Amino acid sequence: MEDDDWIGEYNKRLGVSIMFKLRKIIKHAKSEHFDIIVADTEPIGRVLVFREKDSYTMQSAELYDFYDEMLTHIPMAAHPNPRRVLIVGGGDGIVLREVLKYPSVERVMLIEVDPTVVDISKKYLRLDSGGFDDPRLEIVFCDAAEKVANLDEKFDVIIGDYSDPYQDLPAGPLIEKSFYRNIYQLLDNNGFLSVQAGSPIFQRDILLRVYRNARSVFPIVRIYWAPVTYYPGAVWTFMIASKGADPTNPHCSVGGTTFYNAEIHRAAFILPEFIRRILGSTDET
Amino acid sequence: MEDDDWIGEYNKRLGVSIMFKLRKIIKHAKSEHFDIIVADTEPIGRVLVFREKDSYTMQSAELYDFYDEMLTHIPMAAHPNPRRVLIVGGGDGIVLREVLKYPSVERVMLIEVDPTVVDISKKYLRLDSGGFDDPRLEIVFCDAAEKVANLDEKFDVIIGDYSDPYQDLPAGPLIEKSFYRNIYQLLDNNGFLSVQAGSPIFQRDILLRVYRNARSVFPIVRIYWAPVTYYPGAVWTFMIASKGADPTNPHCSVGGTTFYNAEIHRAAFILPEFIRRILGSTDET
Repeated sequence: MEDDDWIGEYNKRLGVSIMFKLRKIIKHAKSEHFDIIVADTEPIGRVLVFREKDSYTMQSAELYDFYDEMLTHIPMAAHPNPRRVLIVGGGDGIVLREVLKYPSVERVMLIEVDPTVVDISKKYLRLDSGGFDDPRLEIVFCDAAEKVANLDEKFDVIIGDYSDPYQDLPAGPLIEKSFYRNIYQLLDNNGFLSVQAGSPIFQRDILLRVYRNARSVFPIVRIYWAPVTYYPGAVWTFMIASKGADPTNPHCSVGGTTFYNAEIHRAAFILPEFIRRILGSTDET
Repeated sequence: MEDDDWIGEYNKRLGVSIMFKLRKIIKHAKSEHFDIIVADTEPIGRVLVFREKDSYTMQSAELYDFYDEMLTHIPMAAHPNPRRVLIVGGGDGIVLREVLKYPSVERVMLIEVDPTVVDISKKYLRLDSGGFDDPRLEIVFCDAAEKVANLDEKFDVIIGDYSDPYQDLPAGPLIEKSFYRNIYQLLDNNGFLSVQAGSPIFQRDILLRVYRNARSVFPIVRIYWAPVTYYPGAVWTFMIASKGADPTNPHCSVGGTTFYNAEIHRAAFILPEFIRRILGSTDET
């Protein structure tokens, strides 16, 4: 929601809003898919907000953006030598920025459906720390579900950074079995896929769908969690999958993080009781 | 903030609001200290909200109330045999409810400054699961800082469940050294004190004050954290102190929890990087 004084997440579907004191609207743009807003807030600095239908959804923040750290560093640090990285979505450049903290990285492909998101993020959000101009980056503007079906190369880490994957929204296809099967083909034998898996409180259906569909394709599937400052319910889940490699221990170290560290890496896989129960109900079926 | 459609935390001081879709206002009462509101929400059930000056602060919720679980079960489960419990604040009866899950408990004293909070919680919030009528409970209505200076008995667990301890608000004195010195006298040699220590994002001053003041009195002081669905910034800190006993491992088990379990108990002491840095700045001084 956006008014003269506040901006943030306004989720009518879930009945939750998380708003931050607005300092200034920096840019308001319309793309084919979203209304895109860049603004400065008092408590968490510059933010990127999308409007889809009647909801406003927070995408990223300058300060205390635990979401992007935990989505990126769990797969990156779990890999002993991440060289080739595919980012699906992530047009705000923040996962890209975190990926480029690893000196082993040689190539990053970023597939974003919406060129306006990258354009606005590069010009106005400016949280990529120069990542958009890095010579190792290739940006492909197209539908990610189609693109991953037709790519012919291998990646060490694949990160899915998309907005709510409800079936009637753009990211809907990114949690289907067919998508995971295509990702499987692109993943190196020692590689990791990480994606957000929704709110375990308000989007239990998404968490279960991600978990079940991934388990039908990958031999190793683990759920982990982190608190997210700007998302409903405070607790957010992520899914990491591999062809056999263990994602729960870090092998690379990384500096300059706000939330992530090596001990947090291991602890993120220790699940609160209610998330255990949600996943347990799947294990029994 | 409270309007026709939404209710929740509206914190002008911090510039953050977290609102939930309102189903119905159940009761609105005024006490000497607060405006007290009980309401039903769509996403997290029945809630208790205080208004202090121009802010509305969430106190507790029927669903996903990780705050009260983590404040209670870390000290209770870390103790091998918690028999005598003192609750400072906690007039909503939720910490009381969680404490009474341990069959070893023989006596609970609850010191609440505001009789109206207990009255409204018992009649309208009704989340105490009968705790207010338990014969092991003694409720004392008075100023907690004064009361603990004049008590002459020992407790196995002391839990401080108060609203924001800013100096100009009722809970201000509950983080001072003099308060901790009085608590020290009341604590059994194997006992634990737990208190909330504020938002590490928005109330770093409170976290540091709690940590430093407690360390000037207790030999063992540890900070732990949990995500809180209805508090600004998602991450909340707690402090646990003892005269020597280790708080990081559970000795009792407890059922019927939503967030807490034995592995979460240990993981809660693994601190995110930015909290480490806040506390590290103290260790060096």
